[in-house]
Amino acid sequence: MAYRIKCTVAYDGTNYFGWQRQKNQPTVQDKIEYSLAKLHNEDIQIHGASRTDSLVHANNQVFHFDSTLDLTESKWKIAINNFLPKDIYIKKVEKVSNEFHARYSVKKKRYIYKMSINDYDPLKRHNVSFVRRKLDISLMKQEITKLIGTHNFKSFTGGTIYENYVRELYEADLMYDEGDLIFTFVGKGFLRYMIRTIVGTLVEIGYGRKEDILKILNDQNRDSAGKSAEPQGLYLDKIWY
Amino acid sequence: MAYRIKCTVAYDGTNYFGWQRQKNQPTVQDKIEYSLAKLHNEDIQIHGASRTDSLVHANNQVFHFDSTLDLTESKWKIAINNFLPKDIYIKKVEKVSNEFHARYSVKKKRYIYKMSINDYDPLKRHNVSFVRRKLDISLMKQEITKLIGTHNFKSFTGGTIYENYVRELYEADLMYDEGDLIFTFVGKGFLRYMIRTIVGTLVEIGYGRKEDILKILNDQNRDSAGKSAEPQGLYLDKIWY
Repeated sequence: MAYRIKCTVAYDGTNYFGWQRQKNQPTVQDKIEYSLAKLHNEDIQIHGASRTDSLVHANNQVFHFDSTLDLTESKWKIAINNFLPKDIYIKKVEKVSNEFHARYSVKKKRYIYKMSINDYDPLKRHNVSFVRRKLDISLMKQEITKLIGTHNFKSFTGGTIYENYVRELYEADLMYDEGDLIFTFVGKGFLRYMIRTIVGTLVEIGYGRKEDILKILNDQNRDSAGKSAEPQGLYLDKIWY
Repeated sequence: MAYRIKCTVAYDGTNYFGWQRQKNQPTVQDKIEYSLAKLHNEDIQIHGASRTDSLVHANNQVFHFDSTLDLTESKWKIAINNFLPKDIYIKKVEKVSNEFHARYSVKKKRYIYKMSINDYDPLKRHNVSFVRRKLDISLMKQEITKLIGTHNFKSFTGGTIYENYVRELYEADLMYDEGDLIFTFVGKGFLRYMIRTIVGTLVEIGYGRKEDILKILNDQNRDSAGKSAEPQGLYLDKIWY
């Protein structure tokens, strides 16, 4: 009898080359599969909801795997965490039906991006992107909301060829509090580097070096957008099924 | 002509064996003296206000040194930071009178200690101490305030012999917000491990394993107190002159 197990995991991406397994580079998937192999005495493949890039963090990434072990959910949690390093932590384990798939069953995902215009703080260097002051934040707030809805996001991706560049953003929002900025994006799916490129472009709009995000969007050309924002500010925050 | 320079520095203590220079171990003082040696082409000794321990952080540590270089305060800041690693950051440089001494001129210092009873978060593992739930926080709040004033703190120190164990705490306070605890201590001087031992003892009181902090204080015996709290929750937060 095989059970399908759904896990919710938080990780500090600082020391990893992203989520997905790679040759000769440590990834989060590696570490989790290593832990599961220890528990099962055989290789277990996991299926993640989202392929986070190098240095990117997750508050709540989701993956599933199939197992013949019959443990309670709380025993599973302890058992997997037992073989994981301290920068990866399984927050929740659930037994789910065999129809559940961490990637294909996603209804929507939320990413957040943390930025600061305060003076550099060495204690936050892996968790926030520091940028220069003098951002026009009300302009950025105005521009980000124009991205809500269904658009062709080809201007905001790179490195991967897609059949279809149309995606829907359910939410796109910027909050500002005492020098700290939090960008929030909710959608069903995102293109590679899409959020970091949107954030980087909004920053250039905030500096007055670019304007009119809808014009950039409509160009469907990566060269129209700004530089991608640094990876360490990005968090896979929540996934809905 | 020699100038006395006062610097305010923030650091992430995770990768250091504390503030003070040691043989064969990286310390914060080392890194700063290395930067100053690069700038001066000769060794420069710095004098810190406080010797933070291994893994302990600083939001605002202070040190001074004497230099024959005549730079503006903003040029000094850029020049020293230029040769520092990313986990140490000079926030402020001031030219001060030759009477100023980073250690002997201190009027008071504030330390904070960050703890969490929320579920473990790998992103905060170097910055907070995670403890089990079920702490009686209102009892801990009541006990911590009993430490305010002038007392013999011999029960709360170890590893160093002092002539005099009497210190005055101007403030001792515990704030609680959604699973996060912040302990605050203000005093002119502290004994070695004093704050971490007070915090660890308060936690044991919160669990019901110890009671009556004044009794523990009056014992003047380290064995009466609890285990020291972990270093990564401690921050040298502010120094007044």
